[in-house]
Amino acid sequence: QGLPKVINFAVEEMICSANLSFGMYPGLSNGAYNALALHGTPEQKATYLPKLVSGTWSGTMCLTEPHCGTDLGLLKTKAEPQADGSYKITGTKIFISAGEHDLSENIIHLVLAKITGAPDNVKGISLFIVPKFIVNEDGSLGARNGVMCGSIEEKMGIHGNSTCLLNYDEATGWLVGEPEKGLAAMFIMMNAARLGVGVQGMAQGEVAYQNAVAYAKDRRQGRALVPTDRDAEAKADPIIVHPDVRRMLMEAKAFNEAARALVLWGALQVDLSRKAQSEEERLAADDLLGLLTPVIKGYLTDKGFEAAVNAQQIYGGHGYIREWGMEQFVRDARIAQIYEGANGIQALDLVGRKLGANGGRAVQAFFKIVGEETAAAKNDEATAALASALERANNDLQTATLWLMQNGIANPYNAGAAAYPYMNLMGVVCLGLMWLRMAKASSALLAGGTDNAAFHQNKLATARFYAERIMPESNAHRRKIEAGADSIMALPADAF
Amino acid sequence: QGLPKVINFAVEEMICSANLSFGMYPGLSNGAYNALALHGTPEQKATYLPKLVSGTWSGTMCLTEPHCGTDLGLLKTKAEPQADGSYKITGTKIFISAGEHDLSENIIHLVLAKITGAPDNVKGISLFIVPKFIVNEDGSLGARNGVMCGSIEEKMGIHGNSTCLLNYDEATGWLVGEPEKGLAAMFIMMNAARLGVGVQGMAQGEVAYQNAVAYAKDRRQGRALVPTDRDAEAKADPIIVHPDVRRMLMEAKAFNEAARALVLWGALQVDLSRKAQSEEERLAADDLLGLLTPVIKGYLTDKGFEAAVNAQQIYGGHGYIREWGMEQFVRDARIAQIYEGANGIQALDLVGRKLGANGGRAVQAFFKIVGEETAAAKNDEATAALASALERANNDLQTATLWLMQNGIANPYNAGAAAYPYMNLMGVVCLGLMWLRMAKASSALLAGGTDNAAFHQNKLATARFYAERIMPESNAHRRKIEAGADSIMALPADAF
Repeated sequence: QGLPKVINFAVEEMICSANLSFGMYPGLSNGAYNALALHGTPEQKATYLPKLVSGTWSGTMCLTEPHCGTDLGLLKTKAEPQADGSYKITGTKIFISAGEHDLSENIIHLVLAKITGAPDNVKGISLFIVPKFIVNEDGSLGARNGVMCGSIEEKMGIHGNSTCLLNYDEATGWLVGEPEKGLAAMFIMMNAARLGVGVQGMAQGEVAYQNAVAYAKDRRQGRALVPTDRDAEAKADPIIVHPDVRRMLMEAKAFNEAARALVLWGALQVDLSRKAQSEEERLAADDLLGLLTPVIKGYLTDKGFEAAVNAQQIYGGHGYIREWGMEQFVRDARIAQIYEGANGIQALDLVGRKLGANGGRAVQAFFKIVGEETAAAKNDEATAALASALERANNDLQTATLWLMQNGIANPYNAGAAAYPYMNLMGVVCLGLMWLRMAKASSALLAGGTDNAAFHQNKLATARFYAERIMPESNAHRRKIEAGADSIMALPADAF
Repeated sequence: QGLPKVINFAVEEMICSANLSFGMYPGLSNGAYNALALHGTPEQKATYLPKLVSGTWSGTMCLTEPHCGTDLGLLKTKAEPQADGSYKITGTKIFISAGEHDLSENIIHLVLAKITGAPDNVKGISLFIVPKFIVNEDGSLGARNGVMCGSIEEKMGIHGNSTCLLNYDEATGWLVGEPEKGLAAMFIMMNAARLGVGVQGMAQGEVAYQNAVAYAKDRRQGRALVPTDRDAEAKADPIIVHPDVRRMLMEAKAFNEAARALVLWGALQVDLSRKAQSEEERLAADDLLGLLTPVIKGYLTDKGFEAAVNAQQIYGGHGYIREWGMEQFVRDARIAQIYEGANGIQALDLVGRKLGANGGRAVQAFFKIVGEETAAAKNDEATAALASALERANNDLQTATLWLMQNGIANPYNAGAAAYPYMNLMGVVCLGLMWLRMAKASSALLAGGTDNAAFHQNKLATARFYAERIMPESNAHRRKIEAGADSIMALPADAF
């Protein structure tokens, strides 16, 4: 439809909240579309894109093999060149989401493999189209290709998605883009997918929260701590009166609303990086997108899982029983922390690649944004406390960044040991920035006289919760970073 | 066997690590034994205890009903007195672990119910023995009693345990202890059970960690960040070389070892509270046990779950696949945060009951222990840094306690809002104290010349990790407590 990514992601959240597993089918087709749109030949685009867009066919990403996932240089799948320009693909791929099913007429596998004679490392990887059914010249479906589902994985969750082991036995494939440039082409899919996985984490947190709110208003257990807040006509009060139940709801609410804003801000950078008028703006958006992507994927899926666990907790024992549906949110949310690059890999991507790229241009631009917005907001009484809290958190982030520059290069283990708390610290600051923006907007609307005053007052109250109950975590993250790698690397492997 | 509780809990951990679900069957018999041993008549003890001890019969705890769990005052199960001194029990109990099975010849249900005419609140609850098969006078099994399994719950985990809905339809029961004192008698079971559940959390963290260590040494993926640490004969290094993998392993290791020590220290208080020679010592042990129980149950199950999640994360995608077994640890560990009083209830028990009891005698005694041990350890170079870190965390805890005394009574919501971070803060300090003790012991053995020097050096390294990478969290917990309840209680219920 040519709509901006911002609209895409707003809709994507609803799809993921409705059913994460099922939403993955069109999600993967979208990834395959992106890779082909950017790297395919005109013929390939004409053959595959219209059917992927209409949903008549679907797509997959075939990267992982039994012995390698993170380290794709180790992959063994082979591509043997044929006289007609095609390749015979042979190997085994695992964890292939939407790998086999009958929801679409054809499945277009995008497969990483090494062409005969290519370097046996990450530089020797090429990308191939391997359709389940060969497409005839007239566009009709021809022979069944030599790619077969060997098994469907039994998983912890996302049971609605067919996660397959696929055996390629001299399957016919066609090269996408240049040989030995496959990983770069696949990263087009991966980067879009990583933002989408961040949405999944937030969406599971949101739907679990919505259920927990309904339960907390309905379930009566115990008495409000303050007698005047008790329901005189009942023997017990709805559990939403209890501060510790509200703690879990407020943590989820404060996370969900800011995470949604962050995802949309990230999506806006995708749009700007493609469509902004000046090269300068496009570059700035691309910088910011690169920096935010690992945070959106890693931090939002960790916190979305936490929100789902807390929402389940509000149900007490009922949360552990399948028929209530809460435990499914927890099981489903768990995968988002693992796939498309486990969250530890996101943290390394942030610290090892994104921070230092172009002399730290992206992170400096980010600090400038946060610095300018907090400085301005400190002058407004309605946002001053929040702005000060964000300033402190941002100081922690800047200090940690400086520490990394000074200590991460001399000893790379310092960077590796700092990566995960650094991602968390940047997550706290990013969501804090989103709260500052929302608070500024609500404060301005309240000052101007809105007919939705209660909504905006609640926004300000939730922003205050974030400042008081989440932002104090920034300093602990910083201190963990500054502790360095010594205590992490001290033990010999056999001492574990 | 009359062995001390310390031995019991050391064994209990292994049982829980081996199979949490299966370990619950004897665990519940043990709880039933405790309640009957303390409150049963001589005849009841003679009839039931020997068979519970031998395992010929098993036991249950029947508290929860569909509409109430935390708030047992709401329970509806009725007990109608009969001419022969027995009662007819009618009602529905849910989530009854080991509620029906054929692993033992008889099942002795301990059931909470209200005698006809008793107050319809928490003060009207009595405790009853309801055997699955009525026991004849000669000890043989007689008629099937009117307690039937209505369904077996479909749960997130602990599938090996039969969690039942039990229908009582004029089942014959006998009063245990005094009428309307049932909750107190049941709490004998509950308190022992809560320590046991803390062990479950730690045990799941430990077994998940052990698996993750084996995987991290075996799985090769990527290269060590420092070239000299690379395996020149392979294309990739075992993932245990990566700092972020080690971060997850070290967090689990630092937690497991200190949690084990804390559990055994708690178990020692059980033994001392029963067997210490002086009344003063027995009282001091009982105080400390009361204070530690919610921390052991709440903090250890939360952190045990976290350790299991991190251990699963180390497996990447394989962790999400059932056949690897890691996702089962996560699903099983999750229940320990919920049952025997959800962890939010543990936090309220700590802050609302245990802190203030006897004018704060227990917590003052705890502060004295921590204060004296840190002061002494600061003079020893090997433990000085750890002692200083513990002192800072303990200062946070003391400051937070003072804040609670000043703000929790005037506004009870402040206490409710502070409860969960307070439990976490005390957890950080308790495990810190355990690390200080272990470090002192290892340091002394190293100074004296041990033949197990590597083991003790590794203990000191893990203690350092705890000080540098976990203890910084104490200040964030304190700041959350000091934020008070305002932002948690601000929203009206319909704003969620």
